[in-house]
Amino acid sequence: MKKYIAEFIGTFWLVLGGCGSAVLAAAIPDGNNNQLGLGFLGVAFAFGLTVLTMAFAVGHISGGHFNPAVSFGLWAGKRFQGSQLLPYIIAQVLGAIGAGLIIYLIASGKTGFALSGSNPLATNGYGEHSPGGYNLFACLITEVIMSFMFLMIILGSTDRRAPVGFAPIAIGLGLTLIHLISIPVTNTSVNPARSSGVALFAGTEHIAQLWLFWVAPIVGALLAGWLYEAVFAEPKEITTQQELERIS
Amino acid sequence: MKKYIAEFIGTFWLVLGGCGSAVLAAAIPDGNNNQLGLGFLGVAFAFGLTVLTMAFAVGHISGGHFNPAVSFGLWAGKRFQGSQLLPYIIAQVLGAIGAGLIIYLIASGKTGFALSGSNPLATNGYGEHSPGGYNLFACLITEVIMSFMFLMIILGSTDRRAPVGFAPIAIGLGLTLIHLISIPVTNTSVNPARSSGVALFAGTEHIAQLWLFWVAPIVGALLAGWLYEAVFAEPKEITTQQELERIS
Amino acid sequence: MKKYIAEFIGTFWLVLGGCGSAVLAAAIPDGNNNQLGLGFLGVAFAFGLTVLTMAFAVGHISGGHFNPAVSFGLWAGKRFQGSQLLPYIIAQVLGAIGAGLIIYLIASGKTGFALSGSNPLATNGYGEHSPGGYNLFACLITEVIMSFMFLMIILGSTDRRAPVGFAPIAIGLGLTLIHLISIPVTNTSVNPARSSGVALFAGTEHIAQLWLFWVAPIVGALLAGWLYEAVFAEPKEITTQQELERIS
Amino acid sequence: MKKYIAEFIGTFWLVLGGCGSAVLAAAIPDGNNNQLGLGFLGVAFAFGLTVLTMAFAVGHISGGHFNPAVSFGLWAGKRFQGSQLLPYIIAQVLGAIGAGLIIYLIASGKTGFALSGSNPLATNGYGEHSPGGYNLFACLITEVIMSFMFLMIILGSTDRRAPVGFAPIAIGLGLTLIHLISIPVTNTSVNPARSSGVALFAGTEHIAQLWLFWVAPIVGALLAGWLYEAVFAEPKEITTQQELERIS
Repeated sequence: MKKYIAEFIGTFWLVLGGCGSAVLAAAIPDGNNNQLGLGFLGVAFAFGLTVLTMAFAVGHISGGHFNPAVSFGLWAGKRFQGSQLLPYIIAQVLGAIGAGLIIYLIASGKTGFALSGSNPLATNGYGEHSPGGYNLFACLITEVIMSFMFLMIILGSTDRRAPVGFAPIAIGLGLTLIHLISIPVTNTSVNPARSSGVALFAGTEHIAQLWLFWVAPIVGALLAGWLYEAVFAEPKEITTQQELERIS
Repeated sequence: MKKYIAEFIGTFWLVLGGCGSAVLAAAIPDGNNNQLGLGFLGVAFAFGLTVLTMAFAVGHISGGHFNPAVSFGLWAGKRFQGSQLLPYIIAQVLGAIGAGLIIYLIASGKTGFALSGSNPLATNGYGEHSPGGYNLFACLITEVIMSFMFLMIILGSTDRRAPVGFAPIAIGLGLTLIHLISIPVTNTSVNPARSSGVALFAGTEHIAQLWLFWVAPIVGALLAGWLYEAVFAEPKEITTQQELERIS
Repeated sequence: MKKYIAEFIGTFWLVLGGCGSAVLAAAIPDGNNNQLGLGFLGVAFAFGLTVLTMAFAVGHISGGHFNPAVSFGLWAGKRFQGSQLLPYIIAQVLGAIGAGLIIYLIASGKTGFALSGSNPLATNGYGEHSPGGYNLFACLITEVIMSFMFLMIILGSTDRRAPVGFAPIAIGLGLTLIHLISIPVTNTSVNPARSSGVALFAGTEHIAQLWLFWVAPIVGALLAGWLYEAVFAEPKEITTQQELERIS
Repeated sequence: MKKYIAEFIGTFWLVLGGCGSAVLAAAIPDGNNNQLGLGFLGVAFAFGLTVLTMAFAVGHISGGHFNPAVSFGLWAGKRFQGSQLLPYIIAQVLGAIGAGLIIYLIASGKTGFALSGSNPLATNGYGEHSPGGYNLFACLITEVIMSFMFLMIILGSTDRRAPVGFAPIAIGLGLTLIHLISIPVTNTSVNPARSSGVALFAGTEHIAQLWLFWVAPIVGALLAGWLYEAVFAEPKEITTQQELERIS
């Protein structure tokens, strides 16, 4: 049960910090045509730092996935038990929805608040809901490749042969990097829970595009898990117990 | 006595660096409608780096709280002795006031200096003193939740099971993240000393709003302390001596 | 073979992340003359984080060069076998070309896409293709010195006497720093593979300037390798086996 | 001799990276009134990353001072031998001058280059040469306090009781933080070598203000060294040999 609470809190924080900073702080002019807001750089740091902080904070409890695609990818890479996939994903989606609700509550506390623009509440989208107007094909390959590389970073930096303790830095800043590249394309998902948590509060148009942000991240993550296991994994002679300790 | 001096210096640095960068460097146009100043992103880094640097520098002396809410949260999480709460908080508030004075001295060394705007000297506020005009309810839940999550990061990353030595990075960048989300809402407190240190020099309107920035951070921190202790803490079989060494 | 796949993926990520973020996200106005895009700061972080993340992820497989100049510099510094230079460089260039192709595919998924400006697809250049119009001499010394210092950082931070595990942070953020200085001069190469991977898709004018971005980085790297070995290296009494383990 | 070469290279990099990024990349409009350049945030990161990277790279050779004030402060804190002060400072100043020359060479490779503005080549200054027009008193206390806190960070994070290996991160990002606060005031020195290296190429007006950037940083550093030693230092029972190893 501890693990599911940790995944709930971690995914709550990922969505509250990442989407919340985008909604509340991304674009704030100072009155003289000068940007005071975070821009895409600040939002990218916010997403990455949610994972960096929570991976240090509760990584030792749940492994620090905070993302259904990550859970799938770790399962494909033989680092996570299939029987835990469903409860982990439920906890993650519930945490994301909780954050979506809180963002909505805070944002609506400002006079003149309205859901507007192509990506209200920092939803993900393609085509007419891509922030930069990228088509479905560009959005699809972007999400698959970004999720693939995210899992390569996760699998590699938590490998027994990688420096001990640094994985949350590599993984968190890896998520920052992914946002630096792809916010203009899909508003960056690589995380079905994150996409779902805010889409539910943004309306049916956004819910209708959710399928891509479940399919593409999970496909990319599975490919990375299988590739890493096939090509880079060290010969297995370790017991299940040791394996579990290593992951956690 | 060493500990109190360390808390004084650390909180002095938190307010001087965080509020000082906001006052002196946040908004600086380059003369062609282009922002050279830090914006909210730079101010968020400044706050986080004060804690990162001082936690590495004097964390081994005092534990590196620099914040009454942190002291309360660690006490609720059974990591800090209640008898030390009062002297720690006094040292923190004095350090913050010292920094408020220095910011005032430096800022007033510029021709044309005046206390103006909704948040002079980087005070915190709600309603008409919220930078983005957020109402009391939005400001209250923001401060409670941000403080709750700040303590989750602190309690988790200093847990015996977390990677050793990395806590100052997680905690410092966690404070950066909290600012990325919530500067537009309350100008971000999560720290009663920080709020008090600058409000004293900004005038009675700002002092009148201080109650929220004592109540909300401490409530959020206590909730996190109790939750972490109840749900995530490992079974206790360690002696008080070991416990103390771990915290410091 | 594992090593070459790791170098392919790492260099793919370096170019996709660094050049991709520049192409897709560097300059994005918010409609009110306010920059939302990354600017040079965000692009500099993207380049650095590609190396930071991949050095943690596959540094234990291949050593994490991702750059022909780095391979040459490590060879000059007696940290890498000359017989591995050619296969490493082939893998790096192929990875870079793969990334150039993906960037082209994604970027062309936006309505109105065209190759334009002095540095389409984030190519490097001098003279009329220098972003800020710097002449050949300035571009040449910039690339030599930046590559020299990049290798000093790499050789020093992976030295046996440096703190263990931190090298990917030093090296990745070192590459960020190099971009902070020199994007306006040459658009920053210090990496012949990175320059080649995007020039191939940008046209003959850009391919014609590639020579400088092979010669200058490799010269700078060789000088650093020889200097470090001559001046700073510790006396050698270690076996080849230990040496190889240390590097990987 | 190794040590002096390391200090030369490190200080060269500090000035080339910090002042170079300010001169070449700080303010670059994108043609639509949108800032692409680094702004003060990017310059602050550049300064900090020079120290972070070089402290990892050659800290094990020379201790990684790169700054006469740091050498004085470490001497006051009983971490550095007085007999080494003069050769260290000479090496630092020569490295800084070398960097000033290279910046001048690169910058003058752009059509239309001229030394202009209140801080050409990123010189430090007060009064009419303060970037934001701060008076002498404000500039003086800023430089003293910033240098004092810089040495507190250095002395604390290299203390035997602080986490091992993290000092370059704390110190480098500490220098970033100091720049976030004080660029508008003095253009931030805290380092007499850095101030001198560029002033020599900027003209007599700037050389005439150098005295403050020697006096204030050294005074602040000495105060920190004495305070840390008096209040926070652990009881000494270690041999000189161990002491030296710890510092390097």
